[in-house]
Amino acid sequence: MASQTHNPASTDARIVISVDAMGGDKGPAAVVAGLVASIARLPDLDVILHGDESVLQPLLAHERTLAQRVTLRHAARVVTMEDKPSQVMRHGLGTSMWATIEAVRDGEAAAAVSCGNTGALMAVSMLRLRKLPGVGRPAIASLFPTPGGDKQNVMLDMGADVKADPANLLQYAVMGVSYARNGMGLARPRVGLLNVGTEEHKGRPELHEANGLLARHAATGEFDYIGYVEGTDILSERVDVIVTDGFTGNVALKTAEGTARLVSSLMRQALTSTVFSRLGALLAARALRRLQRRIDPRRVNGGVFLGLKGTVVKSHGGADATGIAAAIGLAHRLAKAGLTERIAARVASFEAAGQDAASGGPGNDAGTGSVSSE
Amino acid sequence: MASQTHNPASTDARIVISVDAMGGDKGPAAVVAGLVASIARLPDLDVILHGDESVLQPLLAHERTLAQRVTLRHAARVVTMEDKPSQVMRHGLGTSMWATIEAVRDGEAAAAVSCGNTGALMAVSMLRLRKLPGVGRPAIASLFPTPGGDKQNVMLDMGADVKADPANLLQYAVMGVSYARNGMGLARPRVGLLNVGTEEHKGRPELHEANGLLARHAATGEFDYIGYVEGTDILSERVDVIVTDGFTGNVALKTAEGTARLVSSLMRQALTSTVFSRLGALLAARALRRLQRRIDPRRVNGGVFLGLKGTVVKSHGGADATGIAAAIGLAHRLAKAGLTERIAARVASFEAAGQDAASGGPGNDAGTGSVSSE
Repeated sequence: MASQTHNPASTDARIVISVDAMGGDKGPAAVVAGLVASIARLPDLDVILHGDESVLQPLLAHERTLAQRVTLRHAARVVTMEDKPSQVMRHGLGTSMWATIEAVRDGEAAAAVSCGNTGALMAVSMLRLRKLPGVGRPAIASLFPTPGGDKQNVMLDMGADVKADPANLLQYAVMGVSYARNGMGLARPRVGLLNVGTEEHKGRPELHEANGLLARHAATGEFDYIGYVEGTDILSERVDVIVTDGFTGNVALKTAEGTARLVSSLMRQALTSTVFSRLGALLAARALRRLQRRIDPRRVNGGVFLGLKGTVVKSHGGADATGIAAAIGLAHRLAKAGLTERIAARVASFEAAGQDAASGGPGNDAGTGSVSSE
Repeated sequence: MASQTHNPASTDARIVISVDAMGGDKGPAAVVAGLVASIARLPDLDVILHGDESVLQPLLAHERTLAQRVTLRHAARVVTMEDKPSQVMRHGLGTSMWATIEAVRDGEAAAAVSCGNTGALMAVSMLRLRKLPGVGRPAIASLFPTPGGDKQNVMLDMGADVKADPANLLQYAVMGVSYARNGMGLARPRVGLLNVGTEEHKGRPELHEANGLLARHAATGEFDYIGYVEGTDILSERVDVIVTDGFTGNVALKTAEGTARLVSSLMRQALTSTVFSRLGALLAARALRRLQRRIDPRRVNGGVFLGLKGTVVKSHGGADATGIAAAIGLAHRLAKAGLTERIAARVASFEAAGQDAASGGPGNDAGTGSVSSE
């Protein structure tokens, strides 16, 4: 299959996703299983799969449906979870992760999916894809569950960078809104700025500045700005896009993961503690399994890198077949919607308007503001 | 009862706690109910209760056991959740919150408990009690549940201040260790510094500096420094005291609260979704109620203000009788252990050793370092 000449990118109206088969905690078998599910579900999807041929060929051979739609590309090396991003940037050529990104750079694929080392994936994506014109800092956006059925909230940055100035935060909002609009189908997302309270005077000075910027530019960005939100709102229905710096975002994401894991483990303890609870658990088993799935951090998949010349979906390192399929499905949806081009256009429109973070006014002057500085 | 002359502070070996009856979401009745439970459980506890006499007198009249051990002090005004800290600092005289703190300042009570407005309580505590000599920034410490039975983790700062420099973070560690030792009975607490990864190179520059400071001063502070921890570790058993700035701590606390609340609500949904699950829930009802209690943020009580000339326990605004009793119990335990004096001694010993945040060495030179600067 590695030698087949079928070029999916040239096929009209087909969506090609570049997938890294290696580097996840559950190994290439989980990736291939996720692939099979995605291929079955999405008729216009083709995949370029990167990884060790000797491992992948036997996995793919079992799946006849894949022959026409998966192109296998051999990559001898793997980026491990322990590899430092700086090392991978210098010596990453020949790894499946590098090749996965390269296929997007070369225009063969419309988006990339990997469940490997996040830092390395961000470094390689930055190096090979480069930032979109006008983007100050790319960001990682993650999804959070809410009480409202399938509704998920978008939060960014989750750790692409540990700091963000007010202009970066405005750009995160613009990119997060594009993601919510094209990935989640929300026409006019509500944006909130994460702070330690909702009162005007609370929080760090740079947040007060970002608060002003977001309020002034909400109309241009076609979103509703609802002001400050708190940690309790991240998983609520009162907001769609939560904007914060990468340090705070990463801590919030991992705290939510840790809390969900603790509650699940305590629930298991509780339901096996007495004869009655064990019997009850047996009767409620299906409902409880559904709940476990819903709050399992491995399933809330798809950190998406925004602001690069190409969409990259970072699947959770511990993702199983369902998780991989969710990540591929998300990449497919974002590629089909042309997310990269839409973000580029949004950022450019802000740049053209000369929106200056420092000026404070909503003017149309031609000055180049820090929002648009690279 | 308001006129009784019995002065609990003068009674030998009795522990007097000053309690604010007003300002909580559930009203004075919940506070009195919590008081009754505490009084019954702790034979050496006496209480000075502050609030509206016309409301409190009837509540107390029902409880004969309280007559000898509760001194009622009338305060006509109440600090509401909407009041700004700056206003309360200027015009707070005459409120029950102000009087609650004043009793500690005057030496009548050994510690204070309030479930009112956190910002206002911190402002009044700072203003009236003042910082301990050598303390740069006071901090709020909160408790987090873990999978290990009753073990709880201490995390600080939860929002006394939105920023912290490396010397502040070292002092938070010293104060948090005193709290864990005297409040939780941990002889040699393990301290972790919250970051976005556990690798040396990750995170903000000021964290790298704090990381070095903590490693060098762990022996002096009689704690084990385990290095960086992540959001997932906050609710784990690998650490006892988690150190971070007040912005990050506040977001983490509220994210954990929001996640626990979401999971509880999804659990309720799941357990009422089918006939079988409803029957199962009925059988497992007791175990599930115990679980709900354990993860209910209103029960994980007691934000404690550290670094002031007096211990102040901030009970959750939504605390019920059980929550209030937990907060009073904690205040009693910390007062009995002499937490304030112990923190003062620890901070002074660091100051005497002239530990300089900038010097980098564990030297015993007499220079006044930024750790000890006020």
